[in-house]
Amino acid sequence: MKKVGIVMGSASDLPVVEKAFGILDNLGIPYEVHVYSAHRTPFEASEFAANARKNGFGVIIAAAGMAAHLAGVLASRTTLPVIGIPCKSAALDGMDALLATVMMPSGIPVATVAIDGSKNAALLAAEILALNDDELANKLENLRKADASAALAKDAEVASKYNK
Amino acid sequence: MKKVGIVMGSASDLPVVEKAFGILDNLGIPYEVHVYSAHRTPFEASEFAANARKNGFGVIIAAAGMAAHLAGVLASRTTLPVIGIPCKSAALDGMDALLATVMMPSGIPVATVAIDGSKNAALLAAEILALNDDELANKLENLRKADASAALAKDAEVASKYNK
Amino acid sequence: MKKVGIVMGSASDLPVVEKAFGILDNLGIPYEVHVYSAHRTPFEASEFAANARKNGFGVIIAAAGMAAHLAGVLASRTTLPVIGIPCKSAALDGMDALLATVMMPSGIPVATVAIDGSKNAALLAAEILALNDDELANKLENLRKADASAALAKDAEVASKYNK
Amino acid sequence: MKKVGIVMGSASDLPVVEKAFGILDNLGIPYEVHVYSAHRTPFEASEFAANARKNGFGVIIAAAGMAAHLAGVLASRTTLPVIGIPCKSAALDGMDALLATVMMPSGIPVATVAIDGSKNAALLAAEILALNDDELANKLENLRKADASAALAKDAEVASKYNK
Amino acid sequence: MKKVGIVMGSASDLPVVEKAFGILDNLGIPYEVHVYSAHRTPFEASEFAANARKNGFGVIIAAAGMAAHLAGVLASRTTLPVIGIPCKSAALDGMDALLATVMMPSGIPVATVAIDGSKNAALLAAEILALNDDELANKLENLRKADASAALAKDAEVASKYNK
Amino acid sequence: MKKVGIVMGSASDLPVVEKAFGILDNLGIPYEVHVYSAHRTPFEASEFAANARKNGFGVIIAAAGMAAHLAGVLASRTTLPVIGIPCKSAALDGMDALLATVMMPSGIPVATVAIDGSKNAALLAAEILALNDDELANKLENLRKADASAALAKDAEVASKYNK
Amino acid sequence: MKKVGIVMGSASDLPVVEKAFGILDNLGIPYEVHVYSAHRTPFEASEFAANARKNGFGVIIAAAGMAAHLAGVLASRTTLPVIGIPCKSAALDGMDALLATVMMPSGIPVATVAIDGSKNAALLAAEILALNDDELANKLENLRKADASAALAKDAEVASKYNK
Amino acid sequence: MKKVGIVMGSASDLPVVEKAFGILDNLGIPYEVHVYSAHRTPFEASEFAANARKNGFGVIIAAAGMAAHLAGVLASRTTLPVIGIPCKSAALDGMDALLATVMMPSGIPVATVAIDGSKNAALLAAEILALNDDELANKLENLRKADASAALAKDAEVASKYNK
Repeated sequence: MKKVGIVMGSASDLPVVEKAFGILDNLGIPYEVHVYSAHRTPFEASEFAANARKNGFGVIIAAAGMAAHLAGVLASRTTLPVIGIPCKSAALDGMDALLATVMMPSGIPVATVAIDGSKNAALLAAEILALNDDELANKLENLRKADASAALAKDAEVASKYNK
Repeated sequence: MKKVGIVMGSASDLPVVEKAFGILDNLGIPYEVHVYSAHRTPFEASEFAANARKNGFGVIIAAAGMAAHLAGVLASRTTLPVIGIPCKSAALDGMDALLATVMMPSGIPVATVAIDGSKNAALLAAEILALNDDELANKLENLRKADASAALAKDAEVASKYNK
Repeated sequence: MKKVGIVMGSASDLPVVEKAFGILDNLGIPYEVHVYSAHRTPFEASEFAANARKNGFGVIIAAAGMAAHLAGVLASRTTLPVIGIPCKSAALDGMDALLATVMMPSGIPVATVAIDGSKNAALLAAEILALNDDELANKLENLRKADASAALAKDAEVASKYNK
Repeated sequence: MKKVGIVMGSASDLPVVEKAFGILDNLGIPYEVHVYSAHRTPFEASEFAANARKNGFGVIIAAAGMAAHLAGVLASRTTLPVIGIPCKSAALDGMDALLATVMMPSGIPVATVAIDGSKNAALLAAEILALNDDELANKLENLRKADASAALAKDAEVASKYNK
Repeated sequence: MKKVGIVMGSASDLPVVEKAFGILDNLGIPYEVHVYSAHRTPFEASEFAANARKNGFGVIIAAAGMAAHLAGVLASRTTLPVIGIPCKSAALDGMDALLATVMMPSGIPVATVAIDGSKNAALLAAEILALNDDELANKLENLRKADASAALAKDAEVASKYNK
Repeated sequence: MKKVGIVMGSASDLPVVEKAFGILDNLGIPYEVHVYSAHRTPFEASEFAANARKNGFGVIIAAAGMAAHLAGVLASRTTLPVIGIPCKSAALDGMDALLATVMMPSGIPVATVAIDGSKNAALLAAEILALNDDELANKLENLRKADASAALAKDAEVASKYNK
Repeated sequence: MKKVGIVMGSASDLPVVEKAFGILDNLGIPYEVHVYSAHRTPFEASEFAANARKNGFGVIIAAAGMAAHLAGVLASRTTLPVIGIPCKSAALDGMDALLATVMMPSGIPVATVAIDGSKNAALLAAEILALNDDELANKLENLRKADASAALAKDAEVASKYNK
Repeated sequence: MKKVGIVMGSASDLPVVEKAFGILDNLGIPYEVHVYSAHRTPFEASEFAANARKNGFGVIIAAAGMAAHLAGVLASRTTLPVIGIPCKSAALDGMDALLATVMMPSGIPVATVAIDGSKNAALLAAEILALNDDELANKLENLRKADASAALAKDAEVASKYNK
């Protein structure tokens, strides 16, 4: 199976990003994690993206905060799908990272998820890889069903507590 | 090849959305266009998404404005990748549609592109489909090269005009 | 008397939502509480709304955060009045939920109250039910008077402390 | 049938507000229109709200721009449901009116619709009045069906043009 | 000397508002404090404003949060200068109160200070009263000089610590 | 009578600012107009403010756009009341000027009115000057009454057209 | 003298950017103009920045819109001062470009000017180059004086028209 | 070597500003620290800027919060490059200071860095001074390399932990 490349701009993004690992583990999707900064190690970031397809990657997830250029910089060097996670920082409540990630100009798309939305980034990567992998597609369907069951169990619990 | 489903919430979104058609045409990607509203025709929207995989779709693009629920509603009924285009409306300069599209809760990802970013939505769909289609991957690489060449030609033109 | 249906998108919204329960209890208005997610259990959410009128509901209150689609999804399936409570989440200070709840397109209204405004959601539901219930209308008037008295008592307390 | 009171803060809001009239006319709902300003004619505005219930009104719609206090001022004088329409003005794209209308403190709810959302204000008023009027409830259901049919016709038109 | 009327929308605003008291005390300006809500006790608020001039007030300070209508409601009933303090609440970081206070329509001005800016509200009230009170004007000049001296002392302290 | 000083940061602000002139003319308030920039002619701006009291001014109105420092710079050199008009510019819809004008730190108040709110700036100046001028106070009351009458006339016109 | 490198992300930014040329021409500062996109021609952009110092550049100006990464990408490849001009695009009124340009993480500064602020970008570049060029420093002082004189002439014109 | 002048509007900004000191110390750049307020000590602030060039300063860094006028006020009195640090305060998450610092009108540039971005302010000052100081330029290059090495070490650490 193709791998997911997970790149974060700074090791301080790990607490947000590692929520993606469990989901990929559960789905049996191989992944590789890196700390590459669009600004401090632009060469390594670019090389990673430029060689990602031939190195067996299928999707790249990029997490960064503030003027979050990482996803865009990676996307500019590959035609693999790049998923951007805008990370909330000390000021502006994540709005800076959201706009810097999602408002990409024509030609270089970044598939942006919610601020600090690493779980959805992992799920989106899985959905992309599942296009040609029926087993993975089934796992995703089962995950949805499990989520729905958990939600309904919560409903039953709340309903039994508050509705007489 | 798998098809791209393009759903807009209102026919008034056509001027934005149809910028995606040319790109898909150029890349030889089949697509199907629909006007389904998350609010006015929720049943049809849900059915379209629920059956999309078995009907041969690989990716769904959803374009909507204001409290743009369409992408989320479609995503809640399928595990295919759903790409959201937030459309600018009469007030708030697109911020409402952007937040309503991108800030999805855990479990149901929407791959959001820029406000009115239909070209990038089409390219992202193509990148996803190209994962298992080397010919399409090549076309995307060529498109990038053509874009780069056009940009460099612009550079040459501007440079020759302003730099003596 | 017609019931109020209170639906929250996630059990984590309970601390906000349960502020509505006491008000409805005080006014003697029956209500039913559910956890239905626009995205994880869209079928149950839709069914609840579609059958609400015939199941004896008069008003639906929907509380959700982030790209808060719940109120809109419920409203798309019923012509009962739907009241939306945008819930504040980890980022953006509630602005995402506010815009996703209030900026509904023409045809499907959602009566939106303030961010985390569950008390006002309950009062608004009561005002709606009181249109044809003079006893309830009287209770609401009395509540207003009690609120006014409490405010004036506070004024007297503050005035006696600071004004000599 | 109870009447809808439609109050606008300034006659300059008429182009926005009068979109509500046609909907109420179609549904056979009687209404009364006024220009009362929370700031220039606060006495008349207050009196209108204070006497609205006994004067046969069932719902009040208030439209205002900028620091839009009108809906709140009316709501403070009545326990009838008050619907607020935030109107877009010369600056800030309607955000000022939206926040001034929707962020009401506990005790005095305002049912806020989208910026310039007069059609939905009229529909919400109708939904409220329909709670005890089956004929009106039927008309609203029919309106929804007509809207859905129009949307599906648009879908057919768009589909036949773009899908071969 | 004319009095300053200080009105807050809720006793919960006291921690913000009472920062104004010390300044007025230091300047020897008489003041009267009230808790009047634009929504819960609109009659008392209006009466206070309508009678303020003849009751010996020269300026009114109004502090409120969320959809902060208090200053506007008071201003609509008097031609005394009304100073508005937008108070920060649980959501939106004070932006709601700021816009609801400052964006007043033509005809009814509110002199708005910064979010939670009670000290400046007191100083502005003093500046207004000082127009015809040379002694007070001198006190204000002296306060400015004292502030400047304190700032320069801080500069000396910082400079001696960091500049060698 | 004391004069109003009206300072704008750039002659391009004249179309906004001159709406204040008519109001002051009608009220018989003398005024003096200047173009002083906080940045291009800071010395003249400072001198104007520093000498304003002794030159017979009672209030200063300052209008500026973008990072609107003018009101703050003038306020830092005088203890006369300074009214700030944030002017809308090419970007950000006036939000930049609003925040740069209103968010003054403790010690130096600026009485801020709405974006482009020159009429209210003039009225606020008049209210301040009227504190010790009963004739002017009467004129302001009469203006309010005339505004109210005009609003009620509009109400009558609208009511007669739409209410049958 | 060292040259100023002016890079824009797209030729469509020329109308904004070329306002900088006249200022540099007037000051006799040599410059070189390029169209390099952070996303479409990232290699050329990087190379330009990486070699800028040895190619005789002293300052780089970068203008881009939307998720404006250009200035940051250039800054990541050089330790020359990089000035960023955020350009206003079709949506969000320039806020996206502003945040994507200014909110740079520690280590890689971008000297950001106002939205569409090309004149100030040119002046800032000149101020930087003038540090070791007394003649240029004098020219800048003279420009300031000319600006001040022009502003005072405007003041005289406005004052003579409105002040009698 | 020319000195860097570091001016903060209030001693309360020291925790943010002092992050710049270490960087300048490491690079061997002399600096002088002051607390000058644009509003409380405008004369000292202006004099500092007006004399900065002849007093041996090469760059000025100005840090301030709220309606952050300090950088603009200093810039209006000197043609030295002025770097602005917008500081986050109690409300609005730094947006007020950012806009008040960066949106300078044509003629008076302020080189704005990120909210609370004192490290980058120091680095930008160093980059400017390095234009004619090869030793400093080398130090900056080495700092970049050290940053890159540290980032790559982090990458190795993270990669070895998560990639098997």
